[in-house]
Amino acid sequence: MKNFDFKNPTKIIFGKGQIDKLKEEVPENAKILMLYGGGSIKKNGIYEQVKTALEGFEVLEFGGIPANPEYSVLINALKVIKEENITFLLAVGGGSVIDGTKFLSSAALYEGDFPWEILSQKIPTQKGMPFGTVLTLPATGSEMNSGAVITRAETKEKLGMGGPGLFPAFSVLDPTVIHSIPSRQLVNGITDAFTHVLEQYMTYPSGASLQDRFAESILQTLIEVAPKVLNNPKDYTAASNFMWSCTMALNGLIQKGVPTDWAVHAMGHELTALHGIDHARTLAVIAPSHYKFNFETKKEKLAQYAERVWNITEGSLDHKASAAIDRTETFFQELGIKTRLSDYTKDYHGTAEEISKRFTDRGWLGLGEHQNLKPEDVEKIVKMSY
Amino acid sequence: MKNFDFKNPTKIIFGKGQIDKLKEEVPENAKILMLYGGGSIKKNGIYEQVKTALEGFEVLEFGGIPANPEYSVLINALKVIKEENITFLLAVGGGSVIDGTKFLSSAALYEGDFPWEILSQKIPTQKGMPFGTVLTLPATGSEMNSGAVITRAETKEKLGMGGPGLFPAFSVLDPTVIHSIPSRQLVNGITDAFTHVLEQYMTYPSGASLQDRFAESILQTLIEVAPKVLNNPKDYTAASNFMWSCTMALNGLIQKGVPTDWAVHAMGHELTALHGIDHARTLAVIAPSHYKFNFETKKEKLAQYAERVWNITEGSLDHKASAAIDRTETFFQELGIKTRLSDYTKDYHGTAEEISKRFTDRGWLGLGEHQNLKPEDVEKIVKMSY
Repeated sequence: MKNFDFKNPTKIIFGKGQIDKLKEEVPENAKILMLYGGGSIKKNGIYEQVKTALEGFEVLEFGGIPANPEYSVLINALKVIKEENITFLLAVGGGSVIDGTKFLSSAALYEGDFPWEILSQKIPTQKGMPFGTVLTLPATGSEMNSGAVITRAETKEKLGMGGPGLFPAFSVLDPTVIHSIPSRQLVNGITDAFTHVLEQYMTYPSGASLQDRFAESILQTLIEVAPKVLNNPKDYTAASNFMWSCTMALNGLIQKGVPTDWAVHAMGHELTALHGIDHARTLAVIAPSHYKFNFETKKEKLAQYAERVWNITEGSLDHKASAAIDRTETFFQELGIKTRLSDYTKDYHGTAEEISKRFTDRGWLGLGEHQNLKPEDVEKIVKMSY
Repeated sequence: MKNFDFKNPTKIIFGKGQIDKLKEEVPENAKILMLYGGGSIKKNGIYEQVKTALEGFEVLEFGGIPANPEYSVLINALKVIKEENITFLLAVGGGSVIDGTKFLSSAALYEGDFPWEILSQKIPTQKGMPFGTVLTLPATGSEMNSGAVITRAETKEKLGMGGPGLFPAFSVLDPTVIHSIPSRQLVNGITDAFTHVLEQYMTYPSGASLQDRFAESILQTLIEVAPKVLNNPKDYTAASNFMWSCTMALNGLIQKGVPTDWAVHAMGHELTALHGIDHARTLAVIAPSHYKFNFETKKEKLAQYAERVWNITEGSLDHKASAAIDRTETFFQELGIKTRLSDYTKDYHGTAEEISKRFTDRGWLGLGEHQNLKPEDVEKIVKMSY
C-alpha cells in the first residue's frame, strides 16, 4: 500500500425528503446564487422544493449551465456573483452544474484577470467561495470531491481543476430525484461511475486488499442495481444504492494508497471536445481498447476483477483477464451504450492523430499507472476504438 | 436504505515515515499537551519520533493513561490543561489514550463543575479543544470517529460519549508501529475491529447493498491479514491493511443507512467493568451467544455473511446462519482468544443478574436493532456465555 493523505469534509445528507434540510445547512445571512442547468428542475419539482426550503434567504438564480459546463457561460455567472456580492453558491443539478459551481467558487476568489488560468496553469484552489449542492443526477461523484472539469468551446478544450478548497460544504442526495431522469442519462451515470472505479482499480496489484474490495463492492453494486434502476426508476432501494455508489466511486476513498490510471478519462474528454459525444459514452468507447492495449501490465488485476466481480473463475489468468474486458464491453452494450467511435460519428478519421497531437502539445506524456504511455500509444488506443 | 447524514472531517495521514508530518498539522503557536499510556512509546521509538517532529513547539506531557481510560486519572490531566493554558491535545497511543484525550477535549471546554456529567447525562460535545492523534495500536477506530468510552473505577462504570466536536483534526497512521505490539494486543485489535463491523452489519436486511459489501470487505480483509500480522508484524502489506481496516470499521461509513445493534459492546463493557477482562475478549465471549439468542431476527444476514465472508454456500438458510456463528467463534479461538466467560474468571456467578440489573437501573431497555431486548434477555445471553 502506498502512503496517502485522506480528508473529505463534505457533509452528506442522504435520503427522501432531505432537500428540506437545506435551510439548516446554508450559512445564516448568506446571499445565495442558485445555479442550475437546462431547467429540468422546474419540471420535476426539485426547483420548488429548493425554493421552499430556502424561504427567508436572499436567493438569486442563474440557469442554463450546459452539459460539459462551458467557460463562456460560467463567466456570465461570475459577473453576477461579483456584481451582486453573492456569499454562497448552491448547485442544483448533476455533475456539470456542480463542476461549473466549483469553477465559480474558485474564480470568485481568484485574483487574476483571466480565470481560465486556473485550468490552463493547473492552479490548485486552496480556498473557494463556500458552496453546497443538491444532486439531481447520480454519476460523476462531484458532490463529494474537490475536482471539476470545464469545457471551453472557443478552443475545443476540456480541462480539469481542483484543490482542497473545492469540497462542497454539504450535498443533499435524495434518491427520489431519479424518478424523472431520462434513461439515457441514467445509463450514462451508471457507466460514468463504473468507469471511475475502474480507473482507480485496473492497474497492477499493490497490496491494498481493502481498497480493492471496496472498489469491487461498488462495481458489484452497480451491476446489481443497473437493470433495476433502468426498469423502474421508482425502485427506491435500487435508486439509493445507485446514488450512493456513484458518490463513493469518486470521493477519494478508493484511490487512496493505490496506483491510478486516468487515461480512459483523458482520452474520453477529447472525444467529447472533438465530437460532442456524451462523456460516459466516450469512456465506454475507450476503456475496452485501453485494457486490450495495456493487457500485459494490467492482466493480474483484470483477472482478479474477472473472478470477484464477474464470477469468471475458469481458465488461465490470461483467459480470465481477456474475458473480463469482453464482459465489461458487453455490460456497457447491455445498458444500451454503443462502444465504437464509429457508432457515434462518421467523421472519426484523424481523431486518433488529433488527440495524440493535443497530448503532445500540452506536454501530456506518460499517461497510465506507470506513466509510460506515449502519444503514439494514445493514437493506437483511439484507433482501436474506431 | 435508511436516511442518513454523514460527515467525517478527520484528516488521515497514512504510511511509513508519516509521523514527521506532525509539524505541518499542529496549529502554529499551539501549546501542546502530549498524552500517552504506560510508556511503551518510549521503548519502541515512537516517543522520540513525535518529540523530534514537534521540535520548536511548546510541548508538555501527561503519561500513564491506562487501558480503559480511567476518569480519576484524566481529571489530573484536566488540571494540567487548565493550569498550563494548553491549546492543543496530542494523543499518542491506542484507543484508550485517544478516548481519554477526547474526554479531555470535551471536559476542557465544559462549563459544569463535574465533567462526569458529560457521560452520565449523555451530553453531546458540539465543540472540544482541538486535538490530533498518532495511532500506536490499530483496534478501536477512535482515530477517525467522534466517540469515546470512559471508565470510572469508583463506581465500576464504563460509559460512552461523543458529538460532532470530537473528531480528531488529524490522525497519523504509520503501520510500522505494529512491529513492536505484543501479540495479545494485536489479537485484541483484530477481534475488536471485526466485532465493530459485525455490530453494524449483523441485523436484518435493509436493502443497503453497498454498505453490506463494504462491511463484508473489511471482514474479509481482517480474516486474510490476521494470520499474516500475527506471524510477522513486520509484513508491511498485511500491517497496512490491518490498520486501515480497523479505521474503516468504525469511522461511521458502514453504519450509515443501515440498522445497527451495539448490544455485544454494551454487554461486553460490563464484563470489563466487573471482571477487568480485555475489551476485545469480552466481545468474543458475548457475540456468539448474542447471535444464537437472536437467531430468528438475524438469520438472513447471518446466512449472507456465511456465504460471502466464509464461503459457506451449502445447506439451508438456517444451516448457513448457524454455521456462520460457529465459524466466527472458531475464528476468535484460532486467534488465541477464549470465548467463554468462565475461561477468564472463576467468579462469574451472578454476573448475568448484575449486568441485567445495571441496565434496568440505567433505563437501558430495548437493546438490539429492534430495540426489543429486555434486561431478562440480557441476563439469558450473558448466562449462555458462561
